[in-house]
Amino acid sequence: MSFSVTILGSASARPTANRHPSAQIVNLEEQYYLVDAGEGTQQQMVRAGINPLKLRGIFISHLHGDHVFGLFPLISTLGLGGRKTPLDVYAPAPFGEILESHLKFFDKDLPYEVVWHETHTTRHELLFENRTLEVWSIPLRHRVPCAGFLFREKQPPLNVDKEKISELGLSIAQITAAKRGEDLTLDDGRIIPNEAITYIPYKARSYAYLSDTNFSAKAATLCTGVDLMYHEATYAADEQRNARDRGHATTLDAAKAALKAGAKRLIIGHYSSRYKDEEVLVREAQTVFAETYAAVEGKTFEIEKQK
Amino acid sequence: MSFSVTILGSASARPTANRHPSAQIVNLEEQYYLVDAGEGTQQQMVRAGINPLKLRGIFISHLHGDHVFGLFPLISTLGLGGRKTPLDVYAPAPFGEILESHLKFFDKDLPYEVVWHETHTTRHELLFENRTLEVWSIPLRHRVPCAGFLFREKQPPLNVDKEKISELGLSIAQITAAKRGEDLTLDDGRIIPNEAITYIPYKARSYAYLSDTNFSAKAATLCTGVDLMYHEATYAADEQRNARDRGHATTLDAAKAALKAGAKRLIIGHYSSRYKDEEVLVREAQTVFAETYAAVEGKTFEIEKQK
Repeated sequence: MSFSVTILGSASARPTANRHPSAQIVNLEEQYYLVDAGEGTQQQMVRAGINPLKLRGIFISHLHGDHVFGLFPLISTLGLGGRKTPLDVYAPAPFGEILESHLKFFDKDLPYEVVWHETHTTRHELLFENRTLEVWSIPLRHRVPCAGFLFREKQPPLNVDKEKISELGLSIAQITAAKRGEDLTLDDGRIIPNEAITYIPYKARSYAYLSDTNFSAKAATLCTGVDLMYHEATYAADEQRNARDRGHATTLDAAKAALKAGAKRLIIGHYSSRYKDEEVLVREAQTVFAETYAAVEGKTFEIEKQK
Repeated sequence: MSFSVTILGSASARPTANRHPSAQIVNLEEQYYLVDAGEGTQQQMVRAGINPLKLRGIFISHLHGDHVFGLFPLISTLGLGGRKTPLDVYAPAPFGEILESHLKFFDKDLPYEVVWHETHTTRHELLFENRTLEVWSIPLRHRVPCAGFLFREKQPPLNVDKEKISELGLSIAQITAAKRGEDLTLDDGRIIPNEAITYIPYKARSYAYLSDTNFSAKAATLCTGVDLMYHEATYAADEQRNARDRGHATTLDAAKAALKAGAKRLIIGHYSSRYKDEEVLVREAQTVFAETYAAVEGKTFEIEKQK
């Protein structure tokens, strides 16, 4: 049961020869979610070996081109690929109008439906939920309405201690009840508290995607205890003023956010094209938050299970 | 005085890990023209070392996404780069509406003007002209209105024979007149016919871009004598029927067009993603037209001067 994040793009607005604009894949148990979709997303998915037909949902933080221009070619290609399943896209307004315009000019006969779910970038709200996952919006501070996303794995079912099963001679019905968290009443009348025979197989994991934004203590707080945080770091620390004026973050802003959230690990990205070597930025962030890593195209960050 | 074509994309609608959708750069004397603009064009230009700010004009054959989705991110990036010079885009209708929609949603404050020149895809007409170049439309046969482009270098100024200059003692005014093609009257009354003292330094060169299209004898005829022809070859010869039904060409269609035009060299491209090795397609075309070459990302075809 993998929970991982694959970087498709680490650039800010201007791509370089090696860096693509923002896009990531969150993979939970072979269910794929696309987070932002800069130009070239579909080709980056091919390179990462991810079949775009398997996408379960797309989350767009804001409507700047470097986060969304790759979505429309992808929509077209999914049509060519014969997708029939509706495609859910979570994005702020006026995405609906942009989509309508795209469909009118380029995809009049799309064989599947693109379903827009409007996100409200000032609210922390549940956007998506299925058996294993919740996705929440995280309000951010950018030049245009923008929200990050918190991917929260649901608590996995309880495991029942094998030795207790044979010691107490539990039936399948009793085991199933115990997995659900119920206390058991045995045939001899003894009551067995649930916690005496079950244990959590591993802690539910989480990933926070914060881009594009100024430092926001509130956003960081909403990600408290997150296993892995991505925070944009468009600039080095000596460009603090520039970053603030443009609604972006520095390496130290990103590190402070991870520290504030008590995150286990931090990925930085969305590098300005002026920085040729992202490791310089990583080292700067590491002075505040040691567990900082660089977003690099094609790199996958696995969130391991922990008891 | 270079005249070259650089391939930015050789894929058809679906990009592969290595192939980008259609885009090419025509470079005449360090003046750059973009021909079609599939997704990723701006990054492919960076990789080819071509500064997008230097673009003199953009020619779009038709409004399928794989030929135009890269134009809008490029327009945005040119704005970030501070372009002030108007950008001329030659494309069929309703490009104006698509552009308007893009500007409304993504580039309200673009610091330069994008000037749309409507092409009429059923006419062979002069679209663009400057001191050194003419660009003509070539009507094609695709599923939607589509025209290729013929880039015709203008005949370079005549050279005056150096030995004749000293033998006849020509003045600078007389040399300039001779370069313009005039006959000369010497001080002693002798009339010197222009062709006796001048010669063509090299023949004007030409490049034809034919994509997407069924085989069209008419289009080929309009390219008669072309130095270099690009013709789409989406399919191998055994997919002739499929190609015809979809408004595309096979390897042999492309070769026949080059033969019919009397082209010197042929580039094929726009390969269906089913073909992993384009050399197989090239060898097939070479059975009809020996001088066939593969479009490959980053490859530049130089058109040498010939006397």
